[in-house]
Amino acid sequence: MPTGEFCHPPPLPPAPGAEEEEKWVWAQIKAEARRDAEAEPALASYMYSTILSHSSLERSLSFHLGNKLCSSTQLSTTLYDLFLNIFSTDSNLRSATVADLRAARFRDPACLSFSHCLLNYKGFLACQVSCSHSYEAFLYKKKAYRVAHKLWTQSRKPLALALQSRISDVFNVDIHPAATIGKGVLFDHATGVVVGETAVIGNNVSILHHVTLGGTGKSVGDRHPKIGDGVLIGAGATILGNVRIGDGAKIGAGSLVMKDVPPRTTAVGNPARLVGGKEQPRMHEDVPGESMDHTSFISEWSDYVI
Amino acid sequence: MPTGEFCHPPPLPPAPGAEEEEKWVWAQIKAEARRDAEAEPALASYMYSTILSHSSLERSLSFHLGNKLCSSTQLSTTLYDLFLNIFSTDSNLRSATVADLRAARFRDPACLSFSHCLLNYKGFLACQVSCSHSYEAFLYKKKAYRVAHKLWTQSRKPLALALQSRISDVFNVDIHPAATIGKGVLFDHATGVVVGETAVIGNNVSILHHVTLGGTGKSVGDRHPKIGDGVLIGAGATILGNVRIGDGAKIGAGSLVMKDVPPRTTAVGNPARLVGGKEQPRMHEDVPGESMDHTSFISEWSDYVI
Amino acid sequence: MPTGEFCHPPPLPPAPGAEEEEKWVWAQIKAEARRDAEAEPALASYMYSTILSHSSLERSLSFHLGNKLCSSTQLSTTLYDLFLNIFSTDSNLRSATVADLRAARFRDPACLSFSHCLLNYKGFLACQVSCSHSYEAFLYKKKAYRVAHKLWTQSRKPLALALQSRISDVFNVDIHPAATIGKGVLFDHATGVVVGETAVIGNNVSILHHVTLGGTGKSVGDRHPKIGDGVLIGAGATILGNVRIGDGAKIGAGSLVMKDVPPRTTAVGNPARLVGGKEQPRMHEDVPGESMDHTSFISEWSDYVI
Amino acid sequence: MPTGEFCHPPPLPPAPGAEEEEKWVWAQIKAEARRDAEAEPALASYMYSTILSHSSLERSLSFHLGNKLCSSTQLSTTLYDLFLNIFSTDSNLRSATVADLRAARFRDPACLSFSHCLLNYKGFLACQVSCSHSYEAFLYKKKAYRVAHKLWTQSRKPLALALQSRISDVFNVDIHPAATIGKGVLFDHATGVVVGETAVIGNNVSILHHVTLGGTGKSVGDRHPKIGDGVLIGAGATILGNVRIGDGAKIGAGSLVMKDVPPRTTAVGNPARLVGGKEQPRMHEDVPGESMDHTSFISEWSDYVI
Amino acid sequence: MPTGEFCHPPPLPPAPGAEEEEKWVWAQIKAEARRDAEAEPALASYMYSTILSHSSLERSLSFHLGNKLCSSTQLSTTLYDLFLNIFSTDSNLRSATVADLRAARFRDPACLSFSHCLLNYKGFLACQVSCSHSYEAFLYKKKAYRVAHKLWTQSRKPLALALQSRISDVFNVDIHPAATIGKGVLFDHATGVVVGETAVIGNNVSILHHVTLGGTGKSVGDRHPKIGDGVLIGAGATILGNVRIGDGAKIGAGSLVMKDVPPRTTAVGNPARLVGGKEQPRMHEDVPGESMDHTSFISEWSDYVI
Amino acid sequence: MPTGEFCHPPPLPPAPGAEEEEKWVWAQIKAEARRDAEAEPALASYMYSTILSHSSLERSLSFHLGNKLCSSTQLSTTLYDLFLNIFSTDSNLRSATVADLRAARFRDPACLSFSHCLLNYKGFLACQVSCSHSYEAFLYKKKAYRVAHKLWTQSRKPLALALQSRISDVFNVDIHPAATIGKGVLFDHATGVVVGETAVIGNNVSILHHVTLGGTGKSVGDRHPKIGDGVLIGAGATILGNVRIGDGAKIGAGSLVMKDVPPRTTAVGNPARLVGGKEQPRMHEDVPGESMDHTSFISEWSDYVI
Repeated sequence: MPTGEFCHPPPLPPAPGAEEEEKWVWAQIKAEARRDAEAEPALASYMYSTILSHSSLERSLSFHLGNKLCSSTQLSTTLYDLFLNIFSTDSNLRSATVADLRAARFRDPACLSFSHCLLNYKGFLACQVSCSHSYEAFLYKKKAYRVAHKLWTQSRKPLALALQSRISDVFNVDIHPAATIGKGVLFDHATGVVVGETAVIGNNVSILHHVTLGGTGKSVGDRHPKIGDGVLIGAGATILGNVRIGDGAKIGAGSLVMKDVPPRTTAVGNPARLVGGKEQPRMHEDVPGESMDHTSFISEWSDYVI
Repeated sequence: MPTGEFCHPPPLPPAPGAEEEEKWVWAQIKAEARRDAEAEPALASYMYSTILSHSSLERSLSFHLGNKLCSSTQLSTTLYDLFLNIFSTDSNLRSATVADLRAARFRDPACLSFSHCLLNYKGFLACQVSCSHSYEAFLYKKKAYRVAHKLWTQSRKPLALALQSRISDVFNVDIHPAATIGKGVLFDHATGVVVGETAVIGNNVSILHHVTLGGTGKSVGDRHPKIGDGVLIGAGATILGNVRIGDGAKIGAGSLVMKDVPPRTTAVGNPARLVGGKEQPRMHEDVPGESMDHTSFISEWSDYVI
Repeated sequence: MPTGEFCHPPPLPPAPGAEEEEKWVWAQIKAEARRDAEAEPALASYMYSTILSHSSLERSLSFHLGNKLCSSTQLSTTLYDLFLNIFSTDSNLRSATVADLRAARFRDPACLSFSHCLLNYKGFLACQVSCSHSYEAFLYKKKAYRVAHKLWTQSRKPLALALQSRISDVFNVDIHPAATIGKGVLFDHATGVVVGETAVIGNNVSILHHVTLGGTGKSVGDRHPKIGDGVLIGAGATILGNVRIGDGAKIGAGSLVMKDVPPRTTAVGNPARLVGGKEQPRMHEDVPGESMDHTSFISEWSDYVI
Repeated sequence: MPTGEFCHPPPLPPAPGAEEEEKWVWAQIKAEARRDAEAEPALASYMYSTILSHSSLERSLSFHLGNKLCSSTQLSTTLYDLFLNIFSTDSNLRSATVADLRAARFRDPACLSFSHCLLNYKGFLACQVSCSHSYEAFLYKKKAYRVAHKLWTQSRKPLALALQSRISDVFNVDIHPAATIGKGVLFDHATGVVVGETAVIGNNVSILHHVTLGGTGKSVGDRHPKIGDGVLIGAGATILGNVRIGDGAKIGAGSLVMKDVPPRTTAVGNPARLVGGKEQPRMHEDVPGESMDHTSFISEWSDYVI
Repeated sequence: MPTGEFCHPPPLPPAPGAEEEEKWVWAQIKAEARRDAEAEPALASYMYSTILSHSSLERSLSFHLGNKLCSSTQLSTTLYDLFLNIFSTDSNLRSATVADLRAARFRDPACLSFSHCLLNYKGFLACQVSCSHSYEAFLYKKKAYRVAHKLWTQSRKPLALALQSRISDVFNVDIHPAATIGKGVLFDHATGVVVGETAVIGNNVSILHHVTLGGTGKSVGDRHPKIGDGVLIGAGATILGNVRIGDGAKIGAGSLVMKDVPPRTTAVGNPARLVGGKEQPRMHEDVPGESMDHTSFISEWSDYVI
Repeated sequence: MPTGEFCHPPPLPPAPGAEEEEKWVWAQIKAEARRDAEAEPALASYMYSTILSHSSLERSLSFHLGNKLCSSTQLSTTLYDLFLNIFSTDSNLRSATVADLRAARFRDPACLSFSHCLLNYKGFLACQVSCSHSYEAFLYKKKAYRVAHKLWTQSRKPLALALQSRISDVFNVDIHPAATIGKGVLFDHATGVVVGETAVIGNNVSILHHVTLGGTGKSVGDRHPKIGDGVLIGAGATILGNVRIGDGAKIGAGSLVMKDVPPRTTAVGNPARLVGGKEQPRMHEDVPGESMDHTSFISEWSDYVI
């Protein structure tokens, strides 16, 4: 979905640094929560316990995740403690969190506020727990980990896998803790997303529900897709194997992709073909992962059909 | 699935009015629950707490939804109170509930009883909470709201969005509270259904699991599909944009549709094409949303394939 | 995913009988759990409550399932009692459980240990509760039931349906309790799988997420697919109607299949076609349900596309 | 404890009627809760869920009692519904509740606010659920019941006894649902209080912890004490049998009483004797149940001891 | 309280053996629960989950205790399993349970039914978990253990102490697991009872609330009271040290006893004295632990006081 | 109870400083928990979640208290965070905790281990949350606060009162947060203890269950007892008013005290008298709060009685 007028109601702060931005977003979230708590008695207690009683974004997020993911055999207190410890000591993680909040807030026209994303977007919540180091880090070897990924690389694999399992139960998002995810990533609707062990997702990517970044089954090594910056992947698309989806490419809903897709092109269908043809594919100018334009070129391609 | 003999075991009451019908269905549900509680000790307590201890269908439904959707930060009592208040004061909502119970009971051969639907069909449960005003209302501007939709139009948007989020967590059905849903709608299996903000679903529609009624991303206004009366949408179909699916049309499983589909025709494939061709599409006589005939014409079309 | 070196770290016991194998697997699971509990304080309590405090695999599994599936109106103790009673008295069920554990452990390169599967694989957990008698039994009329199937055939249908509903809520796996499932079946990722009432799944089958084995809607009788031994079904594939997928066949991701598929062939696309053509389809030598080779032939077929 | 300056910080409204008083007290409670929620983040969610999200005192009280008394087999929603139904339809009960809130607020120097009593005083909470019709009603046969007593007289005895049991578990206050309790009664600290089936407690009585109003065991009929208006019973006192404690009498801590005690006298010791002697007991002027003067006369009597 | 007409409504079975009696009591309990479930919707679910869904008294009791005593770190399933295992394998324990049910049912005029005792009497519930071997066993060295006592003698002391702690939290009854308790014991009201490590309680004893059977503090060996058969101990009585309370003795409410009390005599006061004097104490004919006559002789003794 | 051989099984470390002692006690607790977890499968998960998964005594204690005191409206995570924050920043509190653990371990012959006290002694747990600054601090104006007391003095009174209320519900120990409690205090059994707002309890005091340190009701100022160092107060004793119980005094079980008691004397009875008489009371040599000798002198005094 596009970046319409609706998406930018609050004025953005002038060129903030990461820490300032985190503070600004947290202040927005508290203001939104306070407004909603006042207007809606049935939500007030929830707003206070989850947001307003906390002194920082990482405390609020750790509390919320602990309550969402706990079970009768994995207590909320234990999870809260775990998340808080990791978020508190890693400013890179917090900066990725802020970028993901902005991605949802400004790309999805149905997202009314930062707090709406923090509380309700299961794609956002799953992603915070799951694996990630920024795509740049992947390219340049400067790694910045998210929670489960961090646990994975610290050889706390059983814990990372237990968290993956809980996220799959609770949010139906199945991201392997060894996968690499950039900043500013939006998992929209998110139900049914599967991301394999050696997958890499760049910055500012948008991925719809039911998308699979799966393996070929041919090897145990590097066997999952590499998604470039600014890519948009439509609902139900399946990408299999160690293929490369170029920066700014667009993958149509329901597509099956098993080959590389060049940058700024559009692949559609099952099996997928490039819009405009393999030799001279149509190139687009915008960044689809940010503009969220799902249908340009694709509906042209299907014109002859219905 | 068709309306076979299996579907009509209990004799239907002679032309009941809405209130009589509600009473009749509720009496059926209590009788079924009593029979099951007696036959199955492991279910008896559940049958009593959820159905038999309540004095009306709306109390039973409010209790069941409150328990399904509650969490450690949103208590069952608060939700029960909220649902009961809305169902109690809106007979249109209750009549839509009854129509949806009948839809599951008489269209799905695997549905053995009304109580089975009330207790176990997550598509039914999600739909009761979610948005809806009847399609007629949409056409004729006489609106009849369901719970979350009602909250939305009362400007209790944060609460409506919080409920949408819980339904997405608990049932993996993601229906925007502003969407419009008719009466007698069956969401079969329901996992992974996504219905966008400006989507409209007519009366007597049947929608299988993994179906997406999504936006194009091109605008913030009216950007989601309009589904006519009696339409059947197969598993995994994706319909994008403000397109119109005509009354009585059938959309094949796994199809990608980005264009209007004429009434009583069948669209299949990714990208979708009309069976019989764009110019002279095959027209069917029955109402697929009610007959649940998933494969007529479609298997012909794929005949040449395997 | 293939059976690489990674898959066989612990030496296999020499030709064990069923009971010996069950003991051996249970001993492995306890050893793994003890190792993980020692290495990871945040998991130790969970490992003890779920595995290490139990005296047998069926007690551990019954406890774990009871805690996963319980709700405020269906208490864990009741479910534990129910599962334990069934598993304790049916050695065939336990032997199917062990075969399914081996399937996950040795086919999925992301599966690090038996305990990882027991605790975290929702496809495995859903399958244990759901229906099954071995495919052979189906062919030779010697039936061996799993939990919900067993309840179904004992005419405890309301309970079986209540369990199906909980599994659909908790794991988003919707398997009708009357369906028949063989041994050594792997549901990988599992989210969104739907298996209809009269479906049959053979031994050593692997099924990815979002796969539908659905009805045509044309009849109330035998109306769902029959899946042969050793079949591999890719993510998002939809198979509709009483069609036969031959032993060792492979169904590509996202395919729509409404016709029989011959043994050892590969069907791909929406609508599906046979790789190599209807007349002389390409035949493969391996057992795809075990080798987990998702892309052989399929990527060739799509070569001309991108 | 006496009615010191501390006890009257908010100005009292000029001679309110019962309904006005209820509104005034509820307004005080909401103002206190709002002040505390703002000052104390760790309590804010609790204050909102328990007080501030409710539209009336009976809703808040029903919610609070439902959450306090629920268990895994008796759900909070069921209890909430039960209490709300009873409090909503009986203004006499609500007026007794308001009188009890005033009793705690203005007699106990440790009671800082109405909301403190509503939330934290288990004697108050137990009493609201338990039996009561006003003492006047008892004398003049115009009965005004509280929750469990009301259930008792409606022949819902098993439910009344189940509530008595939960109150005894949760608050350790064991009041038989057939007992009769007046208005403005303060159970201070309350742990261990036992009140038998045929006991009667007048208006404006104060009873400390560990007090027993027990039977003689000699009969099944009227066999428990009758406590007059304005009586004060000290900690650990035991009163056995159908004896009459006269209006304004005082029973010393730890006393054992098995005989009638005349009005405005003081009984102390085990076995109890009247201060001043049986023939010319010392008479006091104040109302000890309101002044909370535990030691006047009693310490004189024990003067010769230490 | 005495055995009035009220106490024997259902006709007793003719001279039943232990097993027959257990069956008879269990049949009574199920009949009572069925009657109450039908009459009281708000209790039906509770009656079914706790009593009617179970196939035996020991299953019902184990379930009820598991739910009462569980916590977030000690799960109900674990406790249920533990209790069921012990009750199932020890018919002596079950026979003590039945005798205790009869004691409450026929001695306490406020006890309306066996199910009322099973569900609601915390003294009964605490006693089932706690220590016991019959007093005879104590005398004749043939020991018959209850749950915690059995754990204690099996050297599972930490578990026995953890259960003691939970019982003290939940029921406020603090019975050391090494204490010895006979059959047909009634703990009436039960709040605040404390029974020390080397205490012995005979058969058919009745003990009111707040009673302490404590140590002198002088030794670590045998340092707690020995209570004979048929003794009645009034509310709040404190008995300290390795003293012997003779068969059929009565201890008045609030008494402090630190010396032996002869059989069939009455001790009252703080410090306690014998009614009738040390030399020629009054002897009574009945068995006070069964007649529940709390005040005979005691009120005479205090006659001169008030 | 005395310090017998049983009480000192593990050798004490040579004159440790406070921090060393805390470490030593924590090491003991972990070793005990590890031993019990290995020996007792039914406790292992509990031992790991509550003790073994934590890195320090204050984390373990905060977790345990959070789980004990949480409710559906006050979440464990919030309480854990609160307690951990206070314990982490105040070494005086931790040193009082260690002294209290030692008091239980070495004075109560029924206390088998430090972990037994930490997990199971509700008097210990209640005391850690409740008020305290050391008695010395009280005398010399150097205050060292415990949790609720600390909250009180920080003007977080509503939170302190909410905790008091939860402790009263859960443990039936009712200690006003403004009360002052020394180090090395043992509340044995603890049920029913009430300690008023202006009470002061010295170091090395032992207090049995049902003890009341109450007010006279005559004033709102300093109106509760002051208990000297090393005092022993027997079960059910009631001490009322601003009276002073001298260092090393002993108060007999069930006594009612409303006057000062001189140091090293014994007061018994209702009303209390000094053993040996007011003029020349018997003086004892030991420290009764540490020797736990409940009956010396007292049984002599009652010699003439029975």
